[in-house]
Amino acid sequence: MRKIKPRILSGFVELLPKEQLFFNQMIDTIRVVFERFGFTPIETPSLELSEVLLAKGGGETEQQVYRFSKGKNDLVLRFDLTIPLARYVAQHYAELTFPFRRYQIQKVWRAERPQRGRFREFYQCDIDVIGSVNPLVDAEISSVTYAVFKALGFDEFTVRINNRKILNGFLESLRLGDQITEILRAIDKLEKQGEEAVRKELESLGVSKNQIEALMRFTGTKGTPEAILEQLKTSGIHNAVFTKGVEELETVVGAIRMFGVPSSNYGVDLAVARGFDYYTGTVYETRLEDFPEIGSVCSGGRYDNLAGYYTDKNLPGVGISIGLTRLFYKLKDGGLIKPERATPSEVLVTHLNQRFLKRCLEVATILRENGINTEVYFETDRISKQLRYANLLKIPFVCIIGEEEVRQDKVTIKEMTSGKEEIVSITEAIQKITGKRKGG
Amino acid sequence: MRKIKPRILSGFVELLPKEQLFFNQMIDTIRVVFERFGFTPIETPSLELSEVLLAKGGGETEQQVYRFSKGKNDLVLRFDLTIPLARYVAQHYAELTFPFRRYQIQKVWRAERPQRGRFREFYQCDIDVIGSVNPLVDAEISSVTYAVFKALGFDEFTVRINNRKILNGFLESLRLGDQITEILRAIDKLEKQGEEAVRKELESLGVSKNQIEALMRFTGTKGTPEAILEQLKTSGIHNAVFTKGVEELETVVGAIRMFGVPSSNYGVDLAVARGFDYYTGTVYETRLEDFPEIGSVCSGGRYDNLAGYYTDKNLPGVGISIGLTRLFYKLKDGGLIKPERATPSEVLVTHLNQRFLKRCLEVATILRENGINTEVYFETDRISKQLRYANLLKIPFVCIIGEEEVRQDKVTIKEMTSGKEEIVSITEAIQKITGKRKGG
Repeated sequence: MRKIKPRILSGFVELLPKEQLFFNQMIDTIRVVFERFGFTPIETPSLELSEVLLAKGGGETEQQVYRFSKGKNDLVLRFDLTIPLARYVAQHYAELTFPFRRYQIQKVWRAERPQRGRFREFYQCDIDVIGSVNPLVDAEISSVTYAVFKALGFDEFTVRINNRKILNGFLESLRLGDQITEILRAIDKLEKQGEEAVRKELESLGVSKNQIEALMRFTGTKGTPEAILEQLKTSGIHNAVFTKGVEELETVVGAIRMFGVPSSNYGVDLAVARGFDYYTGTVYETRLEDFPEIGSVCSGGRYDNLAGYYTDKNLPGVGISIGLTRLFYKLKDGGLIKPERATPSEVLVTHLNQRFLKRCLEVATILRENGINTEVYFETDRISKQLRYANLLKIPFVCIIGEEEVRQDKVTIKEMTSGKEEIVSITEAIQKITGKRKGG
Repeated sequence: MRKIKPRILSGFVELLPKEQLFFNQMIDTIRVVFERFGFTPIETPSLELSEVLLAKGGGETEQQVYRFSKGKNDLVLRFDLTIPLARYVAQHYAELTFPFRRYQIQKVWRAERPQRGRFREFYQCDIDVIGSVNPLVDAEISSVTYAVFKALGFDEFTVRINNRKILNGFLESLRLGDQITEILRAIDKLEKQGEEAVRKELESLGVSKNQIEALMRFTGTKGTPEAILEQLKTSGIHNAVFTKGVEELETVVGAIRMFGVPSSNYGVDLAVARGFDYYTGTVYETRLEDFPEIGSVCSGGRYDNLAGYYTDKNLPGVGISIGLTRLFYKLKDGGLIKPERATPSEVLVTHLNQRFLKRCLEVATILRENGINTEVYFETDRISKQLRYANLLKIPFVCIIGEEEVRQDKVTIKEMTSGKEEIVSITEAIQKITGKRKGG
């Protein structure tokens, strides 16, 4: 038979078991934190009507989606989790309780030109709170972000906060109020492309040398949140939008302190702009300080009205998104994570002879009843081959059943990293395995 | 602004928060059981090259898929988890350890004509063991199925087992050996369409009245596994395939007993055929005895060679699949499950006055550190409105902070179902909340 070469499309992701296990642990960690703060999960369909999902229109989005016809329907694969959320809230409005706190961990698809670090299918992990304009919610979002990255094992990271109104007001004060979207899109590239490139882009937008200087000085403001707020208040800029933005930022920063986020893990950064034009208040980016080259790992902001395309109901909200697939690959490629175990099994039950298999199954049942992930080696191989299998999969314990173990109603438990083995009761074996687990 | 009606495509699924929470708990339960038996998770891309996924060709499949072109690529959305598994194993062969025990819980898409109970996007939960011909593995698969449905809260269900070789051998003995696929597809419909319809279909295939009688008698054989095996052995059918099948079935049934599956939860059913032609040995279906109208909730079987389209490597295996979306809807529509809680929050921290919010946040942090899903009510509403919010979401506990609570360094904890409240230390509050959780 002619064989077809087994392969996947470039830009799509497929993980080996040990990587997948690690990735799933990251998802679980994020999910536990989201639920710890009372966010509730939803899922939306992968395919929606183009008319609905692309309601906003706009060139860039339409280029980057998987869109096709099936029967009479013009369909598109979900390309983010924000627009489906807007549609969900508008559609199910009467059945939801507000403020609506939802999390959503699903894949999205973008028909990007494939290149390193760009994915065509990737996980987004989003939280949003819809239906509240309370700045405590903005602060809580930072607090959830802090809790997520702590739980993922990071220490040196900063949730960087800004407020769109400050940027808008500042641009107005420079008489650049009619080019806000384009200028913020340029500012948003400061981190990735560097100051030189952004200066050139601003020049091409017709921004003057003096205005560019002022912008660079402003977005480059350094200091503690308190110091930056003080500078903003004494900046001599008096337009209403700016003043409102400073006020909001001050409230949010004060509240973040109240949430117990350590001052080393958050800061005000006036260069945080975010590209999307629907943000109207607080905006966030989070940086891993030891790996600035990764860029923002968690971004978002506040919007005045989420679902204007679908409903007359006013739906203000605030949210963030973690691009998990990208984060995983960056950490993996940087050697920062080294997935090892290729199975959730904590113990492999092996036998010195096929005739002990029945006992192996009994032992496995007891271990499983005690919450231990347990695999039984079924094949009639020598014990050395059975141990090699455990080694390949990096199963931490092997349980060996032979003549002596059956006679004594015990098991031999072997810790694979140390090679240490001893004959113990099943109860002791359970303690050894779960004890190790707790110890890390 | 013109509004676009927020809606989803028919045949696609979207759950309300309380339903989604319930659904996710079902997935978690299944996942825990799969991992308890040492199955390892993988995920495959949603989109693959049509050339690869549709390698097998075949009319019905091609009609029922979402297939489209993007750039130079002819793409198709994953329509099951078995073919992607075959591709995965062939592609990553050198990096996998065999027997390869994988589970996969992902959505699949089928371009079905929409009708009640037919979904165009639904979850499949699959396990397969690749690279072993050991009948103990067939038995273990039944044992995992048993454990899954027990964990999902069912008692009255039967894992029904048969062997394709028995059916094939029997058909050969009736001189129907050259129509096996068509006849088995007809037999597979016995449950759903009833005997009359199947008789008609068999007639239209040219099967004689006598042959149909024999077939109906055979597939209708009732009794304990032992009794049915005895009947098979004394049936006077002597062709090699039949004998091999009986032998295999006997071994598997014996092993299932060894795995500790209660005799009330498994049985031999000679009518279990399965439609797919790649099954070559054990075949499974699982029925919820109290709800026979649901049909099989977990089906699968053994195949001699999984990935013949992609590799010369011989890859025998065995697996099952749970169509979770369908099961969920059948249980929901039948009133068998009644999702209530619309949030993972176990407690809502409320305040008698905004000035206690700081204390609310402190209390929330302590509760979260103790593993309790905790939400804080931020808005400046009266306590009655705060309690109503908890009631709407069915949050089991409310923690109230006021003057007295702050003075005493305590909290008032209110159990929402009983309405009982008392002022206690935070430690006691934690015990109350987690104690309730454990008690169900």
